[in-house]
Amino acid sequence: MTLREKVIHRLNNLTKPVGSLGYLEEIALKIALIQEKEIPELFKDKRVYVFVSDHGIVEENVSAYPKEVTYQMVFNFLNKGAAINVFSNHVDANVYVVDAGVDYDFEDHPFLIKKKVGYGTKNFSKGPAMTKDEALLSINYGRQIANDAIESGADLLAIGDMGIGNTTTATAMAAAFGYNIDDILDIGTPIDNERLKNKKKAVERAIEINKPDKNDALDVLAKVGSYCIGEMAGFILQAAEKRVPVVIDGFPTTAGFLLAYKMDEKVKEYALFGHKSKVKGHKVIMDSLGVRPILDLDMRLGEGTGAVLSMPIIEAAIKMIREMATFESANVSKGVDQEVAR
Amino acid sequence: MTLREKVIHRLNNLTKPVGSLGYLEEIALKIALIQEKEIPELFKDKRVYVFVSDHGIVEENVSAYPKEVTYQMVFNFLNKGAAINVFSNHVDANVYVVDAGVDYDFEDHPFLIKKKVGYGTKNFSKGPAMTKDEALLSINYGRQIANDAIESGADLLAIGDMGIGNTTTATAMAAAFGYNIDDILDIGTPIDNERLKNKKKAVERAIEINKPDKNDALDVLAKVGSYCIGEMAGFILQAAEKRVPVVIDGFPTTAGFLLAYKMDEKVKEYALFGHKSKVKGHKVIMDSLGVRPILDLDMRLGEGTGAVLSMPIIEAAIKMIREMATFESANVSKGVDQEVAR
Repeated sequence: MTLREKVIHRLNNLTKPVGSLGYLEEIALKIALIQEKEIPELFKDKRVYVFVSDHGIVEENVSAYPKEVTYQMVFNFLNKGAAINVFSNHVDANVYVVDAGVDYDFEDHPFLIKKKVGYGTKNFSKGPAMTKDEALLSINYGRQIANDAIESGADLLAIGDMGIGNTTTATAMAAAFGYNIDDILDIGTPIDNERLKNKKKAVERAIEINKPDKNDALDVLAKVGSYCIGEMAGFILQAAEKRVPVVIDGFPTTAGFLLAYKMDEKVKEYALFGHKSKVKGHKVIMDSLGVRPILDLDMRLGEGTGAVLSMPIIEAAIKMIREMATFESANVSKGVDQEVAR
Repeated sequence: MTLREKVIHRLNNLTKPVGSLGYLEEIALKIALIQEKEIPELFKDKRVYVFVSDHGIVEENVSAYPKEVTYQMVFNFLNKGAAINVFSNHVDANVYVVDAGVDYDFEDHPFLIKKKVGYGTKNFSKGPAMTKDEALLSINYGRQIANDAIESGADLLAIGDMGIGNTTTATAMAAAFGYNIDDILDIGTPIDNERLKNKKKAVERAIEINKPDKNDALDVLAKVGSYCIGEMAGFILQAAEKRVPVVIDGFPTTAGFLLAYKMDEKVKEYALFGHKSKVKGHKVIMDSLGVRPILDLDMRLGEGTGAVLSMPIIEAAIKMIREMATFESANVSKGVDQEVAR
């Protein structure tokens, strides 16, 4: 029997009707395959990495918040006052904040990882967001961060993002990869119609002026991406290489996933999607990739909040396969479904 | 300001865009209103009560499993081998098993509550499932169980159910209350087409022969219900009376909720719906009641599994309102949305 067959056989012998735990059974199987174990291991070191950077596109008045909120939120993360801190503490995960390119110089802090590519990207509605070298550097920084995380013991990773202008950037990247702007354009933070129109125009101009090559992921990143999205893509690529599952969050992190996927499709085998956010384009992209989110709570905050909130469900799936009795061990009569399943 | 206004004001001042935590914000508000506190309390004693009874309708060959599985699963619950045990342990909740009417005599056990109305209902495709007195007794037993739970400290309740034939019974009750059978008929455990036809015929005959009065909830319970569903309804009614939130699970528990709701609509204010199960009728009933499930994982197991898996989300909502920084405390600039919200 292949490993996959062994895991499915075990799932079908637990004291429940065949398939009755639905998506949990798929999650358990996925983790077993990632870990290459018939009975997957529980996680001992769960972490979320929140990638933060500034986005030059905010000059186009696309957000409800001033740019300063990007660095102010870094302090909020480090002071444990943000939603991601509360939820991570709730699920027993640690929060690491990555300065991927904030327009601010931070002091050292044990949970701040300084991998600044620059002090914010350029306004991509007027030209490329960054140089090709910066794009490459962001990917490499992301890989390094994942590598350090895994070498120091992390066995379940999640990514989150923060940075005023990030959904505009994610929209531009998705558009560059061929998604229809109207299918994915939405508010990130609550903005009025005027700002939403600015957002659309900014994305349209970005594509028109920069002409990103949809078959060249690095070109897309350099022209209409951002430092945090580049680092997230590198992080995902490295997690997959090291066979550690990584939980994706909302729309901007999914743009990071999309970028990684364009570079190496195997990342899909190692990624879980924590939730479907309320940002319209998120579902569009996940559907096109054939991936299924775990939660659907109409959240649109980012920071990794949807990713970490899904962790107890992922853990429940592992405990199911580890701890439930089988029909034999519990002396429970089998159903017709078990007879069919074997 | 009313309590509702105070809670919403607080939610809007946490360091996140207004409304960006979506359904979590509604859950936090609901718990605050149930507890009558602007800042809701965390739960100290979470419990799931699994109501078990036998259903005479199994004579009609409507399930993939033999009737014996009902009592065998009680042993599995008490030996902590079932999915509900694994998930409850995961979320730090205790499992109580209620013998509402199993065709078996159990020894005493600290987590077994003996409230047996009878040794299984009668086959309702041939006549009433139970007497009016038994129907009343099941409601009263359910009320007693909730009352004992709350008096001994429970502050978050969930209900689950087990009993071969329970989805057929839930379907008959929903049909008796006026739902279209074809809208709600589905497999519970995986059954073949022949059994599904049997299930439909059994429900149709139940309605035809018994003529339950849709405006008389007790009549519906007596004619086409079951002991476990009656006790769940009483349990929900009492939890609401004592202002303790109760998390509903899948299709049969929702039939219990429906029964309670027909007796007293205020139960809706105290109930949360843990998940949307894969049983088709579950969504139909929830939609008609205007309630929203927390999870949607294609599960169809029962036992309370969907209810307890939602508990970490409910707790996250409470922690959000208790622990997140406000814009003032974190020195984060407000957005245009906060200006509008005040």
